[in-house]
Amino acid sequence: MNKIIAIQGARGSNHHKVACDFYGESVALKECMSFDTLVDCLLDESANLGVMALENTIAGSIIPNYALIDNHNLHIIGEEYLNIHHHLMALEGQSIQDIKEVWSHPMALLQCKQFFKKYPHIKLVEDVDTADVAKRISKENLVGIAAIAPKIAAEIFKLVVLEDDIQTIKDNSTRFVIVQTAKPAEDFDVNKASIKFQLSHKRGSLAAILNAMSDCKMNLTKIQSLPVIDTPWKYSFFVDVTFDDYKEYQKAYSLVEIMAEEFKVLGVYKNGRK
Amino acid sequence: MNKIIAIQGARGSNHHKVACDFYGESVALKECMSFDTLVDCLLDESANLGVMALENTIAGSIIPNYALIDNHNLHIIGEEYLNIHHHLMALEGQSIQDIKEVWSHPMALLQCKQFFKKYPHIKLVEDVDTADVAKRISKENLVGIAAIAPKIAAEIFKLVVLEDDIQTIKDNSTRFVIVQTAKPAEDFDVNKASIKFQLSHKRGSLAAILNAMSDCKMNLTKIQSLPVIDTPWKYSFFVDVTFDDYKEYQKAYSLVEIMAEEFKVLGVYKNGRK
Repeated sequence: MNKIIAIQGARGSNHHKVACDFYGESVALKECMSFDTLVDCLLDESANLGVMALENTIAGSIIPNYALIDNHNLHIIGEEYLNIHHHLMALEGQSIQDIKEVWSHPMALLQCKQFFKKYPHIKLVEDVDTADVAKRISKENLVGIAAIAPKIAAEIFKLVVLEDDIQTIKDNSTRFVIVQTAKPAEDFDVNKASIKFQLSHKRGSLAAILNAMSDCKMNLTKIQSLPVIDTPWKYSFFVDVTFDDYKEYQKAYSLVEIMAEEFKVLGVYKNGRK
Repeated sequence: MNKIIAIQGARGSNHHKVACDFYGESVALKECMSFDTLVDCLLDESANLGVMALENTIAGSIIPNYALIDNHNLHIIGEEYLNIHHHLMALEGQSIQDIKEVWSHPMALLQCKQFFKKYPHIKLVEDVDTADVAKRISKENLVGIAAIAPKIAAEIFKLVVLEDDIQTIKDNSTRFVIVQTAKPAEDFDVNKASIKFQLSHKRGSLAAILNAMSDCKMNLTKIQSLPVIDTPWKYSFFVDVTFDDYKEYQKAYSLVEIMAEEFKVLGVYKNGRK
């Protein structure tokens, strides 16, 4: 049976590209207009796997998505880093001066806000998806509206690219993860783990845990503290590590399990960074 | 001479409240419709101080604001934690069913998105400010449009609150900082510092620094790694610590300066957490 992949956004979006990279062009897609809907699809089993953006170079971690994965006990089974290119596109026969509104995903608007400083006549409107706006412009023949979307969306929906690469930071890498509800079978061909734990506000407690992980040859690639809501002076830590030897990871796991509170593995998978 | 305080947003916003808490109700305000504009006002000296939101319980750190402070070498001289309450407000004589669009700041929309799931007929539109929308609804008599703003905005602009406290997480604390361009004179009556440094991807390097800070009795209240753009495997760390003894802080400063690269103090100030 073919697996159904839930993606945030529509066909032609970056999430779609990640789904194709992992599972091939002919993948069965479920287009979701929000990350909440995507998680709902996994929970009600109308999709088997989900693709979620988790962080990017400009805005940092997408904390609400960490919360979705954490609260619903999803498992990360893979990751991919994608260099994001935003292109401004609209119906044929218009120049950028003819554009009155740009509709796009809040993250895309944020990443291109520098570009639009030159065009104060353009109103930026938050929308649920990048590619879906391209689709609507095409289907509903929307004059004066532009989308910010990947180039593939212009091809699919026959729009004209008014300006290439309008993102402020040209090297804008976004990290996507593949998630599922079931705990995957243990796999030894992995070299990265995402874990979460809590610590009381005791001096040196984080350093002690990082020392233990370092002794087990774990390489830290990400760390982020978040105050635990409603519990003053208690912090959650989201930590990613890479490693060469799965046995060392198991050792680190056992140590952190003893040293930290509320220890949880969000996923063990293959490092997506080349 | 009275100081001019640049705030993100308009009179009636949470940034306005923080300015009043620090400098009194009669403070001279400069309303800025973006954080970039706010920083421009500090750089061209049309304002002396700025109030910036830096992180909140729900979305985590506002990374672009960290980048503004870092890139323009601003100095943090104070902080305040505010419990944010979002209220839905509109012109008199309307029910929530009459509302077609809600205009607000992306962060406010994000924090209330659960509430609007019950009202799929309402379109959420990104706007530059919470309080400024309330002002425009009032001045331009905008029927069918609602604002998400602090209660004080409903009072100032004579709007009716349709629903109180619509944010998903009721205990939503936001951290604001006061920034300026000039380096402040050394002050010993401080107990919190925000620092930034870089580390190469060498196993144990972060643990070593945290150990050194812990030895100097620094309490970590925040840590966040960000990959350094265009430099693979290099990471920036933003770290906040609290301390009791300024001498111990100076010792920690000297140690981290030796151990880390690109070490920088973003500010030393009074802890805003009671």
